[in-house]
Amino acid sequence: MSGFGEATAVERVGDGRYEVDLDAGYAIGEALNGGYLMAVLGRAAVDASPHAHPVSTAANFHRVAKAGPAQVIVDVRKTGRTAASALVTLVQNDSPVVDALVTTGTLDASAEPAYAGAAPATPVPPLDACTEFRPPSGGGFADTVDMRFDRTTMGWLDGQPTGSPEIRAWFRHHDGYEIDAYSLALAVDALPPVALNLGAQGWAPTVELTWHMRAVPAPGWLAVHGTGRLLAGGWFDEEVEVWDTAGRLVAQSRQIARVPRTRP
Amino acid sequence: MSGFGEATAVERVGDGRYEVDLDAGYAIGEALNGGYLMAVLGRAAVDASPHAHPVSTAANFHRVAKAGPAQVIVDVRKTGRTAASALVTLVQNDSPVVDALVTTGTLDASAEPAYAGAAPATPVPPLDACTEFRPPSGGGFADTVDMRFDRTTMGWLDGQPTGSPEIRAWFRHHDGYEIDAYSLALAVDALPPVALNLGAQGWAPTVELTWHMRAVPAPGWLAVHGTGRLLAGGWFDEEVEVWDTAGRLVAQSRQIARVPRTRP
Repeated sequence: MSGFGEATAVERVGDGRYEVDLDAGYAIGEALNGGYLMAVLGRAAVDASPHAHPVSTAANFHRVAKAGPAQVIVDVRKTGRTAASALVTLVQNDSPVVDALVTTGTLDASAEPAYAGAAPATPVPPLDACTEFRPPSGGGFADTVDMRFDRTTMGWLDGQPTGSPEIRAWFRHHDGYEIDAYSLALAVDALPPVALNLGAQGWAPTVELTWHMRAVPAPGWLAVHGTGRLLAGGWFDEEVEVWDTAGRLVAQSRQIARVPRTRP
Repeated sequence: MSGFGEATAVERVGDGRYEVDLDAGYAIGEALNGGYLMAVLGRAAVDASPHAHPVSTAANFHRVAKAGPAQVIVDVRKTGRTAASALVTLVQNDSPVVDALVTTGTLDASAEPAYAGAAPATPVPPLDACTEFRPPSGGGFADTVDMRFDRTTMGWLDGQPTGSPEIRAWFRHHDGYEIDAYSLALAVDALPPVALNLGAQGWAPTVELTWHMRAVPAPGWLAVHGTGRLLAGGWFDEEVEVWDTAGRLVAQSRQIARVPRTRP
């Protein structure tokens, strides 16, 4: 393991207790990315389970996590033949930072879908037509995650929000780590908030994010499609679908977040 | 309170501890409906919170709940000015039945959305063009919840699944209880599984369901739109949007469930 693998590694130190050294490479400003934290929690959940994949993760984000030592506590709630469930908590400085209900299962990489809905109406443009966006703060997340954005969804960058809550991008790891289940946790929370295209200003803290792993991803770039349905009273939702190079829906998520301010 | 109000009432018996008498009126067969259980958990979460509404609920369903006495335990994880979060557990016969991460907040009933996406492409037909479906088992859920279904989405009933994972219906309480936040918890899990229109057979147990309350609902019928994206390896997702008579998106959910068997 290297790069993303090391950055998300958990060390078992007791029954349902893990130590982790959270990696500054996944920070945006000082705050660690929520998808990165979900990847860490997923590793601990799978380690404590008889199953191979984090099939469903529902996370509540209470506080900002920072780089450095933290603990993960896995409280197994149910173990079944096809699925197991645990409450998995990230603790830093003796406070719960993220609580997640994680359901583990084992997906069959060769399973053919009995039904698959249509791919998103607008595909991500070819890589060479996309743009690399590096936030002004630089470093951290932008150095570890390689994303190429559909320019038509990046109007907010130039102070011209498109008015449509959509952002699309290609995603892979800069370090060459091969896309796996934990990459999907990162991918579903890697886009800038789609509400930026509605004039949202400043940080948009995620309150809750649920994601489901739907298939074992094929190697290569992931196509990440972000949309939203409603921004009202300072709350907005963001849905993300992740498709792999084999044309399969490999992850789907919805988060609800706070938008402190919007520009009229 | 009467009917649904009484059926979901929780009695505080200690710090974060509640007693509830689960109502057979919300059973489908012997198993109590998951939306009904989420309504009960939501009441306890709001009681233990400074906020008025169950804004976000992420529930893991471990075991079947049956009518009769049960306990609700609310473990407050974070209390903030705009939102609070708790782990809320339904316990029956000393076993955890449902774990839910519930975020409470207070929605402003008069807030105008800054952005609202389009209504679902296919509306629910007028009430008098819809059909009342009462499952063969009868009683329970079908006597307490008044639902009128879009006939074009009910092919599965006659052994002719439509091939499209969609079910649409109107929803209200039979007892005249006025639609509120807790009604929404019920509405997002009230449809028959959309996978029935893909040839799914038998019971489809929900593993995880997350729903968000997006607005305070207006009185009157709710329009409930169920869809799905993928059925693979025995796992399927179901998305539900609930719209009120004022034409607002009042709730959105996604669940992931198991489909033991599908007909070729």
